[in-house]
Amino acid sequence: MQHDHFQQVAVLGATGSIGTSALDVIARHPQLMRASVLAAGNNVDALVALCVAHRPDHAVIANPAQYANLRDGLAAAGLATQAHAGDAAIAELAASDACDTVVAAIVGAAGLASTLAAATAGKRLLLANKESLVMAGDLVMAAARRAGCEIIPIDSEHNAIFQCLRSRDASAAAGVRKIILTASGGPFRGWSPAQLADVTPAQAVAHPKWSMGPKISVDSASLMNKGLEVIEAHHLFDIPGSQIDVVVHPQSLVHSLVEFVDGSMLAQLGLPDMRTSLAVGLGWPQRIESGVSGLDLIQHGRLDFEAPDRSAFPCLDLAWRAMERGGIAPAVLNAANEVAVAAFLGGNIGFAGIPAVVENALAAVSDGQSDSIEALLDADLRARQAASSAISCLYND
Amino acid sequence: MQHDHFQQVAVLGATGSIGTSALDVIARHPQLMRASVLAAGNNVDALVALCVAHRPDHAVIANPAQYANLRDGLAAAGLATQAHAGDAAIAELAASDACDTVVAAIVGAAGLASTLAAATAGKRLLLANKESLVMAGDLVMAAARRAGCEIIPIDSEHNAIFQCLRSRDASAAAGVRKIILTASGGPFRGWSPAQLADVTPAQAVAHPKWSMGPKISVDSASLMNKGLEVIEAHHLFDIPGSQIDVVVHPQSLVHSLVEFVDGSMLAQLGLPDMRTSLAVGLGWPQRIESGVSGLDLIQHGRLDFEAPDRSAFPCLDLAWRAMERGGIAPAVLNAANEVAVAAFLGGNIGFAGIPAVVENALAAVSDGQSDSIEALLDADLRARQAASSAISCLYND
Repeated sequence: MQHDHFQQVAVLGATGSIGTSALDVIARHPQLMRASVLAAGNNVDALVALCVAHRPDHAVIANPAQYANLRDGLAAAGLATQAHAGDAAIAELAASDACDTVVAAIVGAAGLASTLAAATAGKRLLLANKESLVMAGDLVMAAARRAGCEIIPIDSEHNAIFQCLRSRDASAAAGVRKIILTASGGPFRGWSPAQLADVTPAQAVAHPKWSMGPKISVDSASLMNKGLEVIEAHHLFDIPGSQIDVVVHPQSLVHSLVEFVDGSMLAQLGLPDMRTSLAVGLGWPQRIESGVSGLDLIQHGRLDFEAPDRSAFPCLDLAWRAMERGGIAPAVLNAANEVAVAAFLGGNIGFAGIPAVVENALAAVSDGQSDSIEALLDADLRARQAASSAISCLYND
Repeated sequence: MQHDHFQQVAVLGATGSIGTSALDVIARHPQLMRASVLAAGNNVDALVALCVAHRPDHAVIANPAQYANLRDGLAAAGLATQAHAGDAAIAELAASDACDTVVAAIVGAAGLASTLAAATAGKRLLLANKESLVMAGDLVMAAARRAGCEIIPIDSEHNAIFQCLRSRDASAAAGVRKIILTASGGPFRGWSPAQLADVTPAQAVAHPKWSMGPKISVDSASLMNKGLEVIEAHHLFDIPGSQIDVVVHPQSLVHSLVEFVDGSMLAQLGLPDMRTSLAVGLGWPQRIESGVSGLDLIQHGRLDFEAPDRSAFPCLDLAWRAMERGGIAPAVLNAANEVAVAAFLGGNIGFAGIPAVVENALAAVSDGQSDSIEALLDADLRARQAASSAISCLYND
């Protein structure tokens, strides 16, 4: 599915870092695309400011209590942008004629409904919400296949793999021997389990290479982020876990690699700036300017690779095991991890408590089918309850 | 032009390292391809042995004096393979119905006629003879365009770029910001001009990463090889010299890179084994087994990049200047370099004499059009004379 015509783009999660990067790229190409729908969670002021800059047809705030503020803010700015509120409105607009491309950049499980709606409606889907695939990979990918929805992953690793795989015409998986996801290793690379026990939230959110929100920064520090990405890659590229490797690459300049059966390996490199992935997604199959300068290999000089420390960072293997269990297990993993990370950031559990809570939840919630959104949301709920009670038992007694 | 049907492959330069690698890959895919024509320069015994193994329809020896030996050797082996001799026979078979794919792996200017014949006949051309493009890039590329000949470069660097560019549909050059050729830096990387003065032929042919013939090993040590590759890339990918960079990468695992306008860079990596490039060429757009195992990044651990030392290795800039002069200048560069390298290997000039002789020849032979093979062969001849007299003047007085 090529989009040679003018693109109407819905940016879901517009006030976040991916959303603003997407708007930056969109604004560079007024002859090719515009932002027609902007959606945000709770920050009305930021959303109105983006509407002033980008003049979309629709603006949605997820928190219904903010509806009046959004409507009044748009009116005060003299904009014709229509105000909406609620998660259902976001999903509805993502599936509507108001857009033909959807940038799905809502963080966490909250992004699932709109991602699934966009896939089902056959939109071009620029997917930055990894929980959609972690929780509901089977559902989302099946919906996308049925509707002819082209999914372009925006996560730098999966975008790298996407670019590398498209080096061949069509039928990707046949000639692929392996997908290799790179991981920065996070701020605690090389630390012992004893050292990791004393890690503070402030240390965990200080990612050395990418500027990211606190949740994903903690996931990056625990390697859970890489585990979630393995699950995502399995769905996106229809490849078994046995053909996915993780390699630690501290410079975060090689964003991932694909190895083919002929011994050839393609890698995608670049400065850590999400505008590159977004420009790939917005322009594909053309290459369009993103405002990102080239990577100067001579200046950087050196790229290192090493094995991840799977015993110091057990989240990676927890994710792998959840992927192999399949069904609702990845949804359980994801939900328990969200609860555990929040507890860590709130000072209620230590860093090593994150994998402990997740493991506990995976043991507590029995297996189940992942064939409906209800089953997944139910698993999500049960996992959150299991994680919360694990946190209470383990740390508050 | 896709070749989904069974491929008849002519391997020109069959007894060399590229030729035997090509035959190795071809023999792995008896259901997809066979070697139908084998051509070699002078080594009849090796050629007959390859004919026994691969049972081609035709075998050609370039040296006409060896014709009877080839004919008798084939007969003694009980083969139905037809014997031929001479460069004209090689070019004729390369353009004939005896093959639909041509592996052009004859070393040096001797490969030009058969490369041009294959391009003119619209064969799929797996091009490993770099002199064809250095000498006659305009002619060969124009012939290929006219005939719809698909050229797949086999040189690891250009094959890397080919793979990276094909990550996008069609219209390559539009979205490309830069092509970056990697160079191992050769055995003398980091040496001062004073140290280079005393280099012996034995030191120069000991390439640290690739196993190659003496001529190309010396070119690799002088960086002339990289200069020739810059000229080749300019023709193959229709890109000006200002958009081509050279970066030294001593591990020789990243074979080259392409930078796009969105800040993304694709790199091709792999163990240094020509069978990978040949499998890419023989199987394209499919990926086929090559017998080459994957590159273990964790085992290798580290990739380094640095700027080439253009003053210690002046051949690189000589090549750039010849490319910018255009016309017959690259042919003059190439021919003078062949003479100079032979003189170096024969102990007649020192290592620093190579660029001196080439520079001398470039000054001695005036500019001219490169619009006919005759003009190019005449330039080649005059350059060889200029180089020889430079060698006599400079070193035998």
